[in-house]
Amino acid sequence: MKFLRLGALGQERPALLHGDSYFDLAAITADIDGPFLASDGPARVRAALDAGELPVLPNAAAERIGAPIARPSAIVCVGMNYAAHAAESGSAPPEAPIIFLKTPNTVVGPNDVARIPRGSTKTDWEVELGVVIGKHTSYLDSPADSLAHVAGFVVANDLSEREWQLEISGGQWSKGKSAPGFSPVGPWLVTPDEVDHTNLRLRSFVNGEPRQDSSTADLIFGVEQIVYQLSQYMAFEPGDLLLTGTPEGVALSGRFPYLAAGDVCEIEIEGLGRQRQAFV
Amino acid sequence: MKFLRLGALGQERPALLHGDSYFDLAAITADIDGPFLASDGPARVRAALDAGELPVLPNAAAERIGAPIARPSAIVCVGMNYAAHAAESGSAPPEAPIIFLKTPNTVVGPNDVARIPRGSTKTDWEVELGVVIGKHTSYLDSPADSLAHVAGFVVANDLSEREWQLEISGGQWSKGKSAPGFSPVGPWLVTPDEVDHTNLRLRSFVNGEPRQDSSTADLIFGVEQIVYQLSQYMAFEPGDLLLTGTPEGVALSGRFPYLAAGDVCEIEIEGLGRQRQAFV
Repeated sequence: MKFLRLGALGQERPALLHGDSYFDLAAITADIDGPFLASDGPARVRAALDAGELPVLPNAAAERIGAPIARPSAIVCVGMNYAAHAAESGSAPPEAPIIFLKTPNTVVGPNDVARIPRGSTKTDWEVELGVVIGKHTSYLDSPADSLAHVAGFVVANDLSEREWQLEISGGQWSKGKSAPGFSPVGPWLVTPDEVDHTNLRLRSFVNGEPRQDSSTADLIFGVEQIVYQLSQYMAFEPGDLLLTGTPEGVALSGRFPYLAAGDVCEIEIEGLGRQRQAFV
Repeated sequence: MKFLRLGALGQERPALLHGDSYFDLAAITADIDGPFLASDGPARVRAALDAGELPVLPNAAAERIGAPIARPSAIVCVGMNYAAHAAESGSAPPEAPIIFLKTPNTVVGPNDVARIPRGSTKTDWEVELGVVIGKHTSYLDSPADSLAHVAGFVVANDLSEREWQLEISGGQWSKGKSAPGFSPVGPWLVTPDEVDHTNLRLRSFVNGEPRQDSSTADLIFGVEQIVYQLSQYMAFEPGDLLLTGTPEGVALSGRFPYLAAGDVCEIEIEGLGRQRQAFV
């Protein structure tokens, strides 16, 4: 299933995209959020869909697409999780997942107008496979338990300001990761049964020119390892967002210019949809 | 004013401590949270107190004290912000604030039983002055604008697992900062008029023996600088918690053993109250 949230910022309504049709989920849940995911909401939607009980949403395709999950309690990111990106960033591949956090108020819709932050000269893109947690997750016994705690997958752009992240940060990355609007998410939250998350092509483009082009098969630490390992160090809440890292092909490599006003950034993951940000 | 939240975990009720009396705030707000702080809630409480309209809470002193703010949307921490602590950690004083985040679900009450996380051998204490944000804060024009965005101050213990933070982290500290229960906060949220936040003695004790003993006068970046500078890189929401850093005297220095089951950690900031955690 593909869940999404449609409508103006802060007023999004829950919906389901099935085939080419959009269905209204208002009778089942007020939002696509932690309580919905943790209370078997997706199973209730599936049952209602199969029973033909979901009303079609008219004009849905004309509406703004919001982030497909309401604001998470945390965004936890894995860094340097593709070997070639670690190399282009000047680092060796890590022996254990490296994590940092973004503030949850950075989440915006996938196609919202994006802003180069005030004073930034090094705004960079990062296409990433995002994992949405479905239930309270703490001290998992093995990686085999991870997927049962995953509600689904999303496309995320882990926008980054490299001067703030790397040059005036004392080495702690979060300073360059949390500017307003720095986490476009969506368009859809796709349930695990719909995709093979271990082998999804992910790409980014700036002004139509290709930048990143890789596969989640190249992740150093895959989804199961990330959820299992991180659950030993912290607890995740339903609706939390884990970002799994970005492959090579970002501006930090020196091969491409940083983003500027007027640029259009597009990112895409196979089966999870496509985002488009026009920068101002 | 001293705000607090009393009652069982997840069922805390808002209260005011004035002199030796506890007053019930249920008629004014459902919780001490972002919406309360951002809607001039403290001014309404002050008016009701002055008018003698607040009912006394019976048996309040026997109740569990929760964290004095409901779960923040973000916990943003400044590291290495006392010169002597930077030195004991093997670092030079920073030229700009170094920041990292903790997950908001680490917040617990000031006297709750604390757990050495599973697998931890290097759990450490950090007494810190916490700043609670009172309104949406983004791109402040100067440090002089900061205090108008601050709802008040709290005691916080920025509990840390040093192996996870420093040895298996790839250098990113958050891995050792977000274990369950790692952010005891409170007992009170104290409004800025009640304390001189630029000169507060802060201390920690383990099993009654002194550990840290410093003053917020020794902060490299003070509250006004932190709020102003960080507002250039991220936006804060009402109810968010900023931790301003810890002074020298932690176990990481090598001068004291790390915390173990059976230990009692106490921390205190002048005018802001005292915490006591018994570790299991």
